[in-house]
Amino acid sequence: MESDFIRWLRQRLPSKPCLALKPGDDAAVLALADGASCVVTTDLLTDQVDFVLAEVEPRRIGHKALGVNLSDLAAMAARPLAAVVALALPRCGAGELAISLYEGLLPLAERFDLAIAGGDTNTWNGPLVISVTAIGELTDRGPLTRSGAQPGDRILVTGTLGGSILGRHLDVEPRVDEALRLMAQYELHAGIDISDGLSTDLGHLTEESGCGAVVASARVPVSDAAKALAASTAGSRTPLEHALHDGEDFELLLAVPQAAADRILRDKTLDVPITEIGQFVAERGLWLEDDGQRKPLPIGGYEHRDEP
Amino acid sequence: MESDFIRWLRQRLPSKPCLALKPGDDAAVLALADGASCVVTTDLLTDQVDFVLAEVEPRRIGHKALGVNLSDLAAMAARPLAAVVALALPRCGAGELAISLYEGLLPLAERFDLAIAGGDTNTWNGPLVISVTAIGELTDRGPLTRSGAQPGDRILVTGTLGGSILGRHLDVEPRVDEALRLMAQYELHAGIDISDGLSTDLGHLTEESGCGAVVASARVPVSDAAKALAASTAGSRTPLEHALHDGEDFELLLAVPQAAADRILRDKTLDVPITEIGQFVAERGLWLEDDGQRKPLPIGGYEHRDEP
Repeated sequence: MESDFIRWLRQRLPSKPCLALKPGDDAAVLALADGASCVVTTDLLTDQVDFVLAEVEPRRIGHKALGVNLSDLAAMAARPLAAVVALALPRCGAGELAISLYEGLLPLAERFDLAIAGGDTNTWNGPLVISVTAIGELTDRGPLTRSGAQPGDRILVTGTLGGSILGRHLDVEPRVDEALRLMAQYELHAGIDISDGLSTDLGHLTEESGCGAVVASARVPVSDAAKALAASTAGSRTPLEHALHDGEDFELLLAVPQAAADRILRDKTLDVPITEIGQFVAERGLWLEDDGQRKPLPIGGYEHRDEP
Repeated sequence: MESDFIRWLRQRLPSKPCLALKPGDDAAVLALADGASCVVTTDLLTDQVDFVLAEVEPRRIGHKALGVNLSDLAAMAARPLAAVVALALPRCGAGELAISLYEGLLPLAERFDLAIAGGDTNTWNGPLVISVTAIGELTDRGPLTRSGAQPGDRILVTGTLGGSILGRHLDVEPRVDEALRLMAQYELHAGIDISDGLSTDLGHLTEESGCGAVVASARVPVSDAAKALAASTAGSRTPLEHALHDGEDFELLLAVPQAAADRILRDKTLDVPITEIGQFVAERGLWLEDDGQRKPLPIGGYEHRDEP
């Protein structure tokens, strides 16, 4: 559904001088008067889709709702400034739930010195919905976008991947500081946060950049959660498949020229591990390289999985 | 529930240098780098509370979702710039519904030259939720706030009031142009949009301004819808009571010094009727004046209605 609708919408949306980028990035850059700008992104989370209210502490849901927006700002290398929070709360226990959500959200806001600039708190007979819009500012390096990857650029990724469903999808660690630090110190060509899964988001990067990518399977940083999940659902997916295709890692996926990538990999002062997992190539498409053999990397991992 | 929670939240929110106003207005003013600023507001609408999806054309819901946010920008005398739109769509027919919502939202955006800067389109097993965040810019007159009303100021209101439940709550006419025009040409002390009802929103204005207000009952511009609603629900509320207490008129309620008010009332070039309905007074409280008699004006009209 969504992609048909997004296509329809993109055709219908008139271009506006205040939109500094064409659609397709993690956030919009708004051009304001007098040369100023800000970065805007929104994410809405619903019960049973993005969390299960009956099974988790509400404060983790509040944390996630802000965290996913901060991750989008990180993907643009934007400094967080403020957020607004809109809630649709089930009527029963609405006040306590609202407080618990904010008890997860506020410490994360404080960590990034983000102001809660307003909100809209509603009750209704439906399940919990939490919608956050975050606003950031660009540094003088400008925005990091999805469209700058070039053949020969290295694919770098922060952290480890896969299995976030076991908990990390709630306890999002938005890579804001890492993105700002890398953007300030190194030449980055393109970036995205891994929200849909490595293969899908690498697909977004290559599509917007007009190139392809080859991932070395042995280099993909597989998380312990990916291994645990593979062990607990034996036969369904391997740990590598979880790392390649699971969503909601909220790590940074970057296109970096080789010289800068080499320097980043030697930089011992970064708090989060960064791994080079392959490189961008001129030919469109995604490939997985395993023992010198290249095979297509199916986006999402679901297509053609049972084919030879 | 909400007011307890709002009190809790206001105590918990740290002040931040980027917030140019204290909480309590229709929108926040964000101070950006280099002296720039923007205005931000968010409103979330839910099925069965703000609209009944089964009974109305979805495009009217899309119009309302953006319109109520534009009305908040109007209340601040801010120029609309951009909006982001987050949807939680029932799975069945989600694509068609999303298109219909945007078919209501886009013409309104175009009317105010507003950019749709992004969104988040989700499906789920719950009812329709639509959450819009609007961003505006201030003119060089700065923001119109709730806190500037002074004793002696006249109470001005645009349009006619009451009975919006008969349809106008969906077909919101945000008073953006009127607010910008009045702000540019006249001295305005305070303003709000009537979303909770005249008495409640007048209460917000007087509370934030630290004063009271007297409304002349004969001067309140009662809408045809208020009269129709009173006739159809005989004995429940009078047309005047509907005008005083019904929500979602989305008209402007202004505190204006007498000289400016007189000039506004003589201005024949305004497209919307503007009525002087009373004045602000030093003593805290709200009163209704009827044939020279003052009696307390109960906020919302529900408290003490049966008392002598």
